Amino acid sequence: METSPLITLTTDFGYKDPFAGIMRGVMLGINPSARIIDITHGISRQNIQEAAFSIESSYKYFPHKTIHVVVVDPGVGSGRRPILVAAGGHYFIGPDNGIFSRIYYSGEPPTVIHITSRHYFLPQLSSTFHGRDIFAPVAAWLSKGINILRFGDPITDYIAMPYPEPVVTQGDSIEGEIIYTDGFGNVITNIPANSIDEFVHSRGAVRVSVRGILVPFKRYYAEAGDNGLCSLVNSFGYLELFVNGGSAASDFNLQVGEKVKVS
Amino acid sequence: METSPLITLTTDFGYKDPFAGIMRGVMLGINPSARIIDITHGISRQNIQEAAFSIESSYKYFPHKTIHVVVVDPGVGSGRRPILVAAGGHYFIGPDNGIFSRIYYSGEPPTVIHITSRHYFLPQLSSTFHGRDIFAPVAAWLSKGINILRFGDPITDYIAMPYPEPVVTQGDSIEGEIIYTDGFGNVITNIPANSIDEFVHSRGAVRVSVRGILVPFKRYYAEAGDNGLCSLVNSFGYLELFVNGGSAASDFNLQVGEKVKVS
Amino acid sequence: METSPLITLTTDFGYKDPFAGIMRGVMLGINPSARIIDITHGISRQNIQEAAFSIESSYKYFPHKTIHVVVVDPGVGSGRRPILVAAGGHYFIGPDNGIFSRIYYSGEPPTVIHITSRHYFLPQLSSTFHGRDIFAPVAAWLSKGINILRFGDPITDYIAMPYPEPVVTQGDSIEGEIIYTDGFGNVITNIPANSIDEFVHSRGAVRVSVRGILVPFKRYYAEAGDNGLCSLVNSFGYLELFVNGGSAASDFNLQVGEKVKVS
Repeated sequence: METSPLITLTTDFGYKDPFAGIMRGVMLGINPSARIIDITHGISRQNIQEAAFSIESSYKYFPHKTIHVVVVDPGVGSGRRPILVAAGGHYFIGPDNGIFSRIYYSGEPPTVIHITSRHYFLPQLSSTFHGRDIFAPVAAWLSKGINILRFGDPITDYIAMPYPEPVVTQGDSIEGEIIYTDGFGNVITNIPANSIDEFVHSRGAVRVSVRGILVPFKRYYAEAGDNGLCSLVNSFGYLELFVNGGSAASDFNLQVGEKVKVS
Repeated sequence: METSPLITLTTDFGYKDPFAGIMRGVMLGINPSARIIDITHGISRQNIQEAAFSIESSYKYFPHKTIHVVVVDPGVGSGRRPILVAAGGHYFIGPDNGIFSRIYYSGEPPTVIHITSRHYFLPQLSSTFHGRDIFAPVAAWLSKGINILRFGDPITDYIAMPYPEPVVTQGDSIEGEIIYTDGFGNVITNIPANSIDEFVHSRGAVRVSVRGILVPFKRYYAEAGDNGLCSLVNSFGYLELFVNGGSAASDFNLQVGEKVKVS
Repeated sequence: METSPLITLTTDFGYKDPFAGIMRGVMLGINPSARIIDITHGISRQNIQEAAFSIESSYKYFPHKTIHVVVVDPGVGSGRRPILVAAGGHYFIGPDNGIFSRIYYSGEPPTVIHITSRHYFLPQLSSTFHGRDIFAPVAAWLSKGINILRFGDPITDYIAMPYPEPVVTQGDSIEGEIIYTDGFGNVITNIPANSIDEFVHSRGAVRVSVRGILVPFKRYYAEAGDNGLCSLVNSFGYLELFVNGGSAASDFNLQVGEKVKVS
């Protein structure tokens, strides 16, 4: 039991259709001892940025050698390549559309394989559901110990999306932006905790603002009481804006891309 | 591990309530080695047709002898019978309300058992939650190897819903209809791929239309670009209408039952 | 396999974010043989009453010694205590905010431990996600057989929310209230089946009303036909109001707290 291989699923399939269930069936047919764990199927439809954020936030909490299948795949059936990534002691399988960008940047250079060995695909290959026909069976075969080089050849021209980095602006302040909205309506920025810490160390305080309006900085949600929009360092180590008991996203119409300033 | 029996769940319980969780608890209490796999709990409330489509599309991707529990059960507590179906090398458990119609038609004649042995039910039988009181425990006992004839007697008057078949109309065209809308807003028709192939072979092209308007035929989603409503053969082998990056269902108000023509 | 420990999850995390997936990863990293079962992640955001109802309705259907992690935690990061509860042959882990109130009242006095041993937490402790940093790892360590007293000291001043009990009013009738709305729009009251039975025994009939309007009493949903708002004893043993094929909650604007009378 201790050695049952783990396979995680992260998709934009939602929870109405049988798509994720079908992938589970395919994997268990190939490797009955695989354990399949949902990360989420609630990625916003075809939102590659959001998927990239979700898998980066999650994978490191799984044991080494976990296989992470990520399917947000608007280009399914076109020329976009299926890939297998080995990075950070984990495996990642999905389309080569930038979905693993945050993994590529987060440590040692990754090994990226262009998956081409049809031997490991389902016999019938559709042009609309590679989650079922390619990604699920390849994950299941990998979980049985097949060497990654058996699935295809390494490539170096895989797609790495640039993602927004905070910038230091005049007057020594930092300007970042909102990169993710969670289901509670909290909005997460790309400003890391250590930037905040530096301000606190050097100036004794931190001043967060959005649209020129000050956003009080708190240690935890409930500390904000009824004080409307506030900010804190969240559990992923980023500056987050929130409304205690409410929704920053809908109460203040804050969306991905909105600028946030720390000074 | 290799021999842990698989039980799948397909219901209209949604994701708010603890109903599916309770069924898992009941099954694991009876057979701790069962592995319970969700197909979906997102079937539209009390929509038997949708459940019939989902289980037919999914079951064959699971290993032989998998036990599929399907609970969309508006008649729970009334005279409708609980049944156990053996068909196509799989088992199916649920209410006798037509939910397994597409299974009945898809191969060898099924064996259908009217589940009557209270011995395998929970001791307290409610009139509103047979998923917990009958279907879950029967599935768990079946997964322990109990012979299907122990659960009740075979019947032949089980309910098989007719389901819409495409018809060949004058001028040698085919008229089908929309039978399922997925979470992306793609609408799936009942026109099979081989009908499309025949047209392509005999005429060199296929002409898909809905409400008299031509719907361009593509090979994959992204090929449609920004061209609005298009069509393709989907991963289940049926003609599907879609909007690349949009929703055919809401952008064009296409609903189940709408006629689609191929000529 | 038979002895793989079970851990259930009940949260208000919803299905968009990777939070529940991350908790699964943390637990499997500590105890690879744990089996993690979702009860639901669809509790209304920060609704402690709803979570208390869901876990009470579910836990007893799981095998003894199951570990139930419940995270609805508006006070995360504040002074509110993390607790581990042993009651009714099961374990419960979550914040001390009343979420386990219905467990406390349902049998023998519980043992409640204030979780303080940082040794069993993740090394990095955030102030916003104790599900990941405290509750998941403590559950995983407990599932490995660590004695509950190793996690901290017993307390007796844990928070037990009062919850509404039906009252006997003049004329020997019972007044209760709606305590939960399910995803079908059925509304569940706090009036137990045995109260209904007594009425039926002593008077030969039961008269259910809401807002002074009679609500016909049925045995099962379909028996109501098209008769609008009706009532029955549901699978949890409580009086429930429903609309057959519709939604009592939205068709009649019935909400938690609305009074319901039985006479």
